[in-house]
Amino acid sequence: MTESMHDPHIVKSYDQDLEAIQALIMKMGGLVEVAILEAATSLENRDEELAERVRANDKAIDALEEKVNEEAARLLARRQPSAGDLRTVLTVMKISANLERIGDYSKNMAKRTGVLLQMTPIDGSSGAIRRMAKAVEKMLKDALDAYIQRDAELAQDVRMRDLEVDQMYNALFRTFLTYMMEDPRNITGCMHLHFIAKNIERMGDHVTSIAEQVIYLVTGQLPEDDRPKADRTAIDAPGVDA
Amino acid sequence: MTESMHDPHIVKSYDQDLEAIQALIMKMGGLVEVAILEAATSLENRDEELAERVRANDKAIDALEEKVNEEAARLLARRQPSAGDLRTVLTVMKISANLERIGDYSKNMAKRTGVLLQMTPIDGSSGAIRRMAKAVEKMLKDALDAYIQRDAELAQDVRMRDLEVDQMYNALFRTFLTYMMEDPRNITGCMHLHFIAKNIERMGDHVTSIAEQVIYLVTGQLPEDDRPKADRTAIDAPGVDA
Repeated sequence: MTESMHDPHIVKSYDQDLEAIQALIMKMGGLVEVAILEAATSLENRDEELAERVRANDKAIDALEEKVNEEAARLLARRQPSAGDLRTVLTVMKISANLERIGDYSKNMAKRTGVLLQMTPIDGSSGAIRRMAKAVEKMLKDALDAYIQRDAELAQDVRMRDLEVDQMYNALFRTFLTYMMEDPRNITGCMHLHFIAKNIERMGDHVTSIAEQVIYLVTGQLPEDDRPKADRTAIDAPGVDA
Repeated sequence: MTESMHDPHIVKSYDQDLEAIQALIMKMGGLVEVAILEAATSLENRDEELAERVRANDKAIDALEEKVNEEAARLLARRQPSAGDLRTVLTVMKISANLERIGDYSKNMAKRTGVLLQMTPIDGSSGAIRRMAKAVEKMLKDALDAYIQRDAELAQDVRMRDLEVDQMYNALFRTFLTYMMEDPRNITGCMHLHFIAKNIERMGDHVTSIAEQVIYLVTGQLPEDDRPKADRTAIDAPGVDA
């Protein structure tokens, strides 16, 4: 209906604009992957310098999200995309919002490094936290690959793997309760560790949301709400009888 | 440059489109205000039916966010707005994303009602939680008023009030630590209550983000990063010597 739909030059420009935005998303994704791993490492090694770097790098992630939003809005305003292209641009904006949130959670996680330095260490907790963070980072990597390759199957796989992250969180929650009940000196440290574990579990939710956006993009439909949820701490009250 | 800038009929349509989206935002805001208060009430009165209603209503909030995004994208695609109008549309999308998150936090809060029924009650905690939720709900109401009236001063006031919410959170954090150290039977309940208090504190952050968007919209600048932050649990480790 509009001129742009019949002018190959303008259509090409739309694709170029979109590619430029996708490049920003990939850059953001790379920074967020690093943030997740570095936040976990800063906690494990009690490395305050590294924690500070995670916090500083989060500003770059935020700036990229701003840029994605601006570029996407400009693209929509200039190119008047069709329904399918409109969907792609909206997906890109949602993915960047999810990435920004994951970056924020990484920053909040890194922030606890200084506090944990003052606490009684909890046996095995940093290893468990690191494994959880690593699982989420791997999910994110695959979700971004699924996006670039428009691979709904891989996205579905990522979505299902969030269950494992939820299970890791539940196991940690129970462990922390046990430690706190055993010795009140563990309470403050465990409160902070629980906060961190919950942050990682939420990162997993945001990665899942990215995977769902990819599925929507490829199939035109959001997955049915049948994903097994395993943060059961709100339902089962684990540890009550621990 | 484009036809739309010189055709009063089309310009009027842009305003009408924008007003329609703003009406959706206000509807969303109303639902989220109710969700915050009802979630706190469901916890205080241990009312599982009300908690269930909060969870069900969250679907309506999510659907409204979808609609805001679609309408905003359609508006951008059709009307090719100028820089200022582009900023308004982006702001609207960000506000709706913030509202959706606050709705989610309310839902998560309400979800804990069932668990808390099984726990040893913690003296004074439901009142404190309710006051905190009430403060955030009032902030949200004012932030939305500031948006409609393009009132940067009111938005700035909202932004500053988040400090009080952070202080309420810090006080609760210390109270919970004390209760847990006094009696291990309080530990599980306090873990859930801490989770709830942290959720409300995060809602306050999202309301602050809405207020900042309003300031950006009116003044063209985001406020300087000088807001006093009072969630000091990541820095001070309160309760270490409690």
